[in-house]
Amino acid sequence: MRVAVDAMGGDNAPAIEVGGAVAACREFGISVTLVGDRTRLEEELAKHACAGLDIDIYHASEVVGMHDSASDAVRKKKNSSVRLAFELVKEGKACAAVSAGNSGATMAAGMFVLKRIKGIERPAIAQIFPTLKGQTLVLDVGGNVDCKPLHLVQFAIMGEVYARYAMGITSPSVGLLSNGEEDSKGNELTRETNSILRNASINYSGYVEGRDIFKGTVEVVVCDGFVGNVVLKSSEGLADAAGHMLKDEILKSWVSKLGYLFVRGAFSRFKKIVDYAEYGGAPLLGINGVGMICHGGSNIKAIKNAIRFAHEYAKSGVTEHVAEKLSENTSVFVQRDTPRSQAAA
Amino acid sequence: MRVAVDAMGGDNAPAIEVGGAVAACREFGISVTLVGDRTRLEEELAKHACAGLDIDIYHASEVVGMHDSASDAVRKKKNSSVRLAFELVKEGKACAAVSAGNSGATMAAGMFVLKRIKGIERPAIAQIFPTLKGQTLVLDVGGNVDCKPLHLVQFAIMGEVYARYAMGITSPSVGLLSNGEEDSKGNELTRETNSILRNASINYSGYVEGRDIFKGTVEVVVCDGFVGNVVLKSSEGLADAAGHMLKDEILKSWVSKLGYLFVRGAFSRFKKIVDYAEYGGAPLLGINGVGMICHGGSNIKAIKNAIRFAHEYAKSGVTEHVAEKLSENTSVFVQRDTPRSQAAA
Repeated sequence: MRVAVDAMGGDNAPAIEVGGAVAACREFGISVTLVGDRTRLEEELAKHACAGLDIDIYHASEVVGMHDSASDAVRKKKNSSVRLAFELVKEGKACAAVSAGNSGATMAAGMFVLKRIKGIERPAIAQIFPTLKGQTLVLDVGGNVDCKPLHLVQFAIMGEVYARYAMGITSPSVGLLSNGEEDSKGNELTRETNSILRNASINYSGYVEGRDIFKGTVEVVVCDGFVGNVVLKSSEGLADAAGHMLKDEILKSWVSKLGYLFVRGAFSRFKKIVDYAEYGGAPLLGINGVGMICHGGSNIKAIKNAIRFAHEYAKSGVTEHVAEKLSENTSVFVQRDTPRSQAAA
Repeated sequence: MRVAVDAMGGDNAPAIEVGGAVAACREFGISVTLVGDRTRLEEELAKHACAGLDIDIYHASEVVGMHDSASDAVRKKKNSSVRLAFELVKEGKACAAVSAGNSGATMAAGMFVLKRIKGIERPAIAQIFPTLKGQTLVLDVGGNVDCKPLHLVQFAIMGEVYARYAMGITSPSVGLLSNGEEDSKGNELTRETNSILRNASINYSGYVEGRDIFKGTVEVVVCDGFVGNVVLKSSEGLADAAGHMLKDEILKSWVSKLGYLFVRGAFSRFKKIVDYAEYGGAPLLGINGVGMICHGGSNIKAIKNAIRFAHEYAKSGVTEHVAEKLSENTSVFVQRDTPRSQAAA
């Protein structure tokens, strides 16, 4: 099955998207449909040696900009590249849509075109973080800022299913991000979510703290989209700042500059572990189909890997498994309409 | 003026606290009162060369443990070392209290003994983060999990005053932590806070994102205590994990191990920049007096620096200036009792 790539969305579109598509097709044998302005895409493709590669173009006359609102993007720009990428998924012409454009608009377009999985109230954006033990999936990292406990419970279920089927983790454990490990910690939202998750049919480990994300204490960390976004961006910021500071210190003396020549290999391997581009994109979970949201500033490697992971996500059957897991957990959702005092009684 | 140190609170008390007190007294000439079990403290002090150092002991028969609840600590353990440290501040026998114990209990004890600054609804714990430009103060990092806009507005004012008077920044700019820079971003709490702060008499820069903390875009970053705690702990976790990963990569080959000998100096200087121990502790803001909260796992350097910064905080007059700045901003608080729709009209 083909992967549809919104070729006009990223900060350096369409060059990066086309480069990523060519690389994914060449390295992984994945067929790609580039969605966007046909003329520009043909020009861009002409710069690559594409003989034998299964890459085609689907024309889109509009582009959703970074400053378009999510709802406007869906309602007003019906021929936008991001929306048409999801239309191809809906029509069965692609198994997944990938976009490095406006992430709110990508989420809105995916939701509008493919609709939510029955029972899911809010789709979420998940992000893979490198950890001391491997990888941890954190969700939501930006889709939903004001969440109710039910939303977080559903994120937990979607995250568990994604970790199990798309990341191949046999029995993923799930933690709820909080300001301490004890049940007495947390805010109103997490305390109620915590009590519901204790009864859900997932491997729930209770509260985890910020440092557990990178320790790899659990495989899935659940939080609302405001907190997740702040954690994601502060981590990126810290990694960036630390890199600059260390470089400055190394450049301060000839001795350390010389030493750097010898440790360069170790630095490169380290960078590969923490490089977001290795993880490609952030899976959009909870819609009837597969979407992958990439960083606006993605490079070719990131787009290539996003296409690869989107293809694996589509093969994994996560969408169907989320629906199953939801139905297994119907009873835990009953609490959502019950006032808290009553539920506690 | 003396600094009162809760000598029984930290994970490695009282050895670390006594070591920190001796170092602070020796290096900075600060007089210290160690609060805790007299016999144990005398034993510990005997291990150091204390001749000529102005360090005394104030006996406390109880200790607040990490698992004591904050309110129990205050109500039940009236002779605890942390509570008595604040009593010394109240009686004017010390200018500041420093504790590496249970941070919730430290905050509760400070609030109970010294009371809040008139008009301040909730005290906050602030943390200094190293940035590309110097330092940024983030608050709250743990005291208050479910905040109202008014609380965040007061954190902004307290942070501004601390940055100006205790950190010596001439005109500190203040940002509100959010999931995007545009005013349309944020959650219910930040959107309302944002609109109030636009009218406050501080140098308010609007929303900042997680990555701005380490870029040093503003000098003060405001958030609720849940978000702040998650950011603080995930940053610590990332720094730790990245250090381990990089070390693992360096140890993989003889070439990089050799190179490491040459870059070791640069690494040490870098570590000093990002080492929490350099910043000592987290100032407790909003109470009638000075409190400094240290990491439970603080080392001697951290306690030493916490004593030094607590002493500077006390000299800076931050407490008085917070009261002044609050009165300048009385008008912006009027909105707090006005329903949102009315305020907008």
